[in-house]
Amino acid sequence: MTAVGNGRHLSVGSTAPALTKGKLRLYSMKFCPYAQRVHLVLDAKQIPYDVVYVNLSAKPEWLFDKHPLGKVPAIELEDGTVLYESLILCEYLDSVSATRPLASADPLQRTKDKLLIERFSQFIGLFYKIYQDISALNSDDIMKSLDEFEVELTKRDAPYFSGARPGMVDYMIWPWCERADMLTILAGDRYLLPEKRFPKLLQWKKFMKEDEAVKSTYLDASVHVKFLKSREGGVADYDMLVS
Amino acid sequence: MTAVGNGRHLSVGSTAPALTKGKLRLYSMKFCPYAQRVHLVLDAKQIPYDVVYVNLSAKPEWLFDKHPLGKVPAIELEDGTVLYESLILCEYLDSVSATRPLASADPLQRTKDKLLIERFSQFIGLFYKIYQDISALNSDDIMKSLDEFEVELTKRDAPYFSGARPGMVDYMIWPWCERADMLTILAGDRYLLPEKRFPKLLQWKKFMKEDEAVKSTYLDASVHVKFLKSREGGVADYDMLVS
Repeated sequence: MTAVGNGRHLSVGSTAPALTKGKLRLYSMKFCPYAQRVHLVLDAKQIPYDVVYVNLSAKPEWLFDKHPLGKVPAIELEDGTVLYESLILCEYLDSVSATRPLASADPLQRTKDKLLIERFSQFIGLFYKIYQDISALNSDDIMKSLDEFEVELTKRDAPYFSGARPGMVDYMIWPWCERADMLTILAGDRYLLPEKRFPKLLQWKKFMKEDEAVKSTYLDASVHVKFLKSREGGVADYDMLVS
Repeated sequence: MTAVGNGRHLSVGSTAPALTKGKLRLYSMKFCPYAQRVHLVLDAKQIPYDVVYVNLSAKPEWLFDKHPLGKVPAIELEDGTVLYESLILCEYLDSVSATRPLASADPLQRTKDKLLIERFSQFIGLFYKIYQDISALNSDDIMKSLDEFEVELTKRDAPYFSGARPGMVDYMIWPWCERADMLTILAGDRYLLPEKRFPKLLQWKKFMKEDEAVKSTYLDASVHVKFLKSREGGVADYDMLVS
């Protein structure tokens, strides 16, 4: 079960919906990991928002009025100000809403956390080969890119990177961890993380799946694969979850 | 005249110098624009530091103990903690030192400034062609990537992006603006910014050259070109400024 919204993805030729008073708006795409980061932060901090989903294969013309490159995620504030870039957005949302701070209040810890998120881009870079040429992917490289996260969780001696509850690191890396199971579906069991090498990380993943914000955005790996296959087939099925 | 330090760049086989008590250490390379960002912030905020310059063509083995990818800039704190990534570093330094805040105290303005810095990466991406294939560079693209900075300065109605004094945006984009004159030396006058199209940006550049932090890191475009030529010739002359 997922709580991902039931809205359709707006396409070329559509009209930008009017803003809802008192709410910020998130421009999103249901299968986009960068957009999921922002959903996670909004949900974790219980910031009210509405969502406009966008078809990225046939972008609405108005999207370029919101984002100079026509990308998601972007948020639009009540006064029409548009902000974008997932990490910058998440930091902004955390800094303007005092409910449940996600970043550490300590500048040094906050900086170390940012570097850890930055280091995760190695995994993201490798993972993206599943969208291009999965045969170029190597399970050794994937495992190696995750070793330091196992080390870090062990050092931090807590269920989550941020301690007793998920925080910025946890939410910023989660979207790709959710999608990591796509690798075993598409390329076999050698992509299963060995329990002996990654005990903390595997436990973390179980804990994360119980988090309310994660539950509200979660899609099963089989659904992510189905979307990927539709994209590879030439017509990305953005609205496959619309009932 | 420049105040760039007189130290030599340490190479493979060298020993990491002991830390100086009471000072943070910056690992740098004299011609690296990303490292220059950190010098600018340290100098502008008058944070005491020492510098260790590193030969990036023959990296000291110990550099990989400091930075997982053996890159500069990196800073080492008194307790041996190492931080890196120029933007993350500059934010950290600004947040731990109260003298002359460089980032806006307003979260929304701070976020807009971060996006502006992010947008500048378009110029950086184009500019890097001078290190690869300058014939692939197009002066129209360069000009277009700067248009929004002219618009932004006009909107902000101040000598600097941050107001009456240079701030985060000014210092984060400066290293490539300093190097932009390399384009006219290497590829001709069509890379001169037209006064009519960029009046504010040209004025900003003049003001920036008078800033003390800029003066302390400034190298003339001819020097940058000389270094580039040495690199193209196969032996990057890191120590050309050592007297």
